[in-house]
Amino acid sequence: MNAAWSSFDRARPRESVLDEDLLGRLAGALPEDGGDPADAIEDAARVLDASISPARPLNLAYVGSTGLATATVGDALAATYDVNLAAHSAAAAILEAQTSRWTAEFIGHPRACGGFTSGGQISNLSAILAARERAMPGSRVSGVSAQAGALYCSGEAHQSIIRAAEVAGLGSESVRRLPIDSERRLVPEALERALEQDLAAGVNPVAVIATAGTTLTGAVDPIADLVAICERRSVWLHVDGAYGLPAAATPSAAPLFAGIDRVDSATLDAHKWLGVPKSCSVLLVQDEEVLQAAFGHREKYLLHREDAPNPVDHTLEYSRPMRSLKLWLVFRVHGAAALRVWIQRGIDNARLFTSLIDADPAFQMLHRPMLSTVCFRHTPPGVADLDAHNLRLARAIQADGRVYLAPATIDDRACLRGCFVNFRTTPEDVRLAVAVARELGELLA
Amino acid sequence: MNAAWSSFDRARPRESVLDEDLLGRLAGALPEDGGDPADAIEDAARVLDASISPARPLNLAYVGSTGLATATVGDALAATYDVNLAAHSAAAAILEAQTSRWTAEFIGHPRACGGFTSGGQISNLSAILAARERAMPGSRVSGVSAQAGALYCSGEAHQSIIRAAEVAGLGSESVRRLPIDSERRLVPEALERALEQDLAAGVNPVAVIATAGTTLTGAVDPIADLVAICERRSVWLHVDGAYGLPAAATPSAAPLFAGIDRVDSATLDAHKWLGVPKSCSVLLVQDEEVLQAAFGHREKYLLHREDAPNPVDHTLEYSRPMRSLKLWLVFRVHGAAALRVWIQRGIDNARLFTSLIDADPAFQMLHRPMLSTVCFRHTPPGVADLDAHNLRLARAIQADGRVYLAPATIDDRACLRGCFVNFRTTPEDVRLAVAVARELGELLA
Repeated sequence: MNAAWSSFDRARPRESVLDEDLLGRLAGALPEDGGDPADAIEDAARVLDASISPARPLNLAYVGSTGLATATVGDALAATYDVNLAAHSAAAAILEAQTSRWTAEFIGHPRACGGFTSGGQISNLSAILAARERAMPGSRVSGVSAQAGALYCSGEAHQSIIRAAEVAGLGSESVRRLPIDSERRLVPEALERALEQDLAAGVNPVAVIATAGTTLTGAVDPIADLVAICERRSVWLHVDGAYGLPAAATPSAAPLFAGIDRVDSATLDAHKWLGVPKSCSVLLVQDEEVLQAAFGHREKYLLHREDAPNPVDHTLEYSRPMRSLKLWLVFRVHGAAALRVWIQRGIDNARLFTSLIDADPAFQMLHRPMLSTVCFRHTPPGVADLDAHNLRLARAIQADGRVYLAPATIDDRACLRGCFVNFRTTPEDVRLAVAVARELGELLA
Repeated sequence: MNAAWSSFDRARPRESVLDEDLLGRLAGALPEDGGDPADAIEDAARVLDASISPARPLNLAYVGSTGLATATVGDALAATYDVNLAAHSAAAAILEAQTSRWTAEFIGHPRACGGFTSGGQISNLSAILAARERAMPGSRVSGVSAQAGALYCSGEAHQSIIRAAEVAGLGSESVRRLPIDSERRLVPEALERALEQDLAAGVNPVAVIATAGTTLTGAVDPIADLVAICERRSVWLHVDGAYGLPAAATPSAAPLFAGIDRVDSATLDAHKWLGVPKSCSVLLVQDEEVLQAAFGHREKYLLHREDAPNPVDHTLEYSRPMRSLKLWLVFRVHGAAALRVWIQRGIDNARLFTSLIDADPAFQMLHRPMLSTVCFRHTPPGVADLDAHNLRLARAIQADGRVYLAPATIDDRACLRGCFVNFRTTPEDVRLAVAVARELGELLA
């Protein structure tokens, strides 16, 4: 593990691949008898070394976490005791509540209650289920009626919102994917019109989902404007800040998140920009009673104790690991100030990246980064099909292995996309990423 | 951590409580600056030590896991590299697929595909969502219509089935909670009648859920009989074996699970009877196309690579930690044979417990254990309200701390319930559990 930690401190010349022996063992049948623990752990470490790890400073393709040793100690401690956070857990519940309060305090949310979930999908789904029960009281018992409820978000919202609509029985057709402005933020007037239209047609608005840090470009929807619209009509406003919400803690980005103190619920994945490994998603909800209405057990149930509330009464999952411990340790060991510096570093890296791309006529930024995500493409003279060229370039970069970047599509144009959330990424790494893209792009042009 | 491991080897005289200093720190605001890592880790360890840990051999209240050091190493390794199993992950996906195959092989399921989820709730929900899309094609897009679909299970099914119906928009009223026989197993004839009634009324049967190891008593529904009924009508049969399914690997209990090779889907929580910490739930599904229909992204999406399938196309979650690694290490280091011995140990402990209760006229078994769960109560002469007495006894046992047992209700009678899934639990521990119940019961009588 120590070797792994030190290897994360710098980019690697190549991605590792598995040898035939190990591949053969990974195709084998269930071992009847046990084997040498050292051999098994060595195989596991080699498999991990040949996997796509976001902990490496130049893995920019996915919004992954940083790989903080403190957090891994937290995961190992949590695994050792294996406390169940769904039921009465004594001291563990106190620590989990403090971590939830700290997270809310960090981003400026006056949290009433919340919980830790396995990821943005489950956090977003939980918020939408709470909103569904508030908009359609009793639907938990009697079911939903197709097309009777609608969700509202920009066309740039994460797929997990569509999936949540599918899962909740509302159907993907119930999601109104609204227009975006030139900065790729949801247009408040479009939301007003959609709400009016649906209300006139007898459709029940279940929730508006604002994205605070879209997956594609990191755009932050205008939360304060959406709060005003939603408060006027008593429509639930959920902020999907899985990736971007931690940036609300930095003075430079805080203004983008104005209004976050008045939303009904918000999602934040600590396993993205707060440096802890998956999974550690935080759901913050203002009104505990709505969560209770959506998830509470009205009948007496095995797990209940008369004298203590049960987390399973306001969370979707039953048995739950102690996901909060690693985030608690990070707050205790590193402090809020260090986290702010690390988040600012990501924003600064994106700005540096942008200035390097702007300075090179063979490249083009497709979007000015609002947070720490960059979308750019290689536009060398003489290349007719820039989409095909940039897809080839993305594959060449992944095969090269020094930098890990993914292809994406922005307004039907193929591009390269990178996201800076790893505090290990240095300005030199940023320069290397641009240099690798330039070098391989020229070879392919 | 070493101190924790060795403390798991024996019962403790008392449960730990937190001192006022630490309680004060757990009420404190977000630390702006970091602190000494050793202090933070020590506080974390003390919080965990004062929490309800299923790793202790006499924690019998919840179906928790055993606390295998091998598995904790797996969790720490997975956290270090933090690979995302939702997207292209290279070698990690190969290891995850092998672990899924091994799990299926272990219990005798001819697995076509499957995945690792955060727990029984998400595994059961995923299976029900797949069944929903098969029974109501297109409902994923256009939503469900209330009351148009039904789910079938015994009255002893886990609450997660009810919650899955609520989440999926079918509503809890759509769940037909069918009668049980004297062994607390679903009555196949009752299922036949319910299906006929619903079909006659135009209600669409979405899925039958058989429980293999109910939470209350560990009863295993008659899977083979249910397979016959479901195959005849092409109704999806899901087995919720979150707790009990690993017992299918032991020669002594395998006959209870006859038919498991022909079910549409099955849930198994490795973090219960396979000794790994939460969370590590396995969903096994016969027909990959149905999972794909329920969860596949038909539109082109950022995460996709043309040349590789994406786990997110057949699982509910997006970003996913590598939950399989710890189970893989347990299979490699300890082997299937050792796991079978450990599972058999739980079954034997329940039998020993039953014989001790049977031999003591002051106790009464309320159910003959089919697997490793015991439901019993203290029935001393002269106590008029046995329900109140046994609830008091449960609280006294939890306060005493030597054994952790929970109260439960079986046929409206309050009882004590324990579940043996921890391979660290010895026959001496079993005797101590009975002795503690006797000692405290006599004090209260």
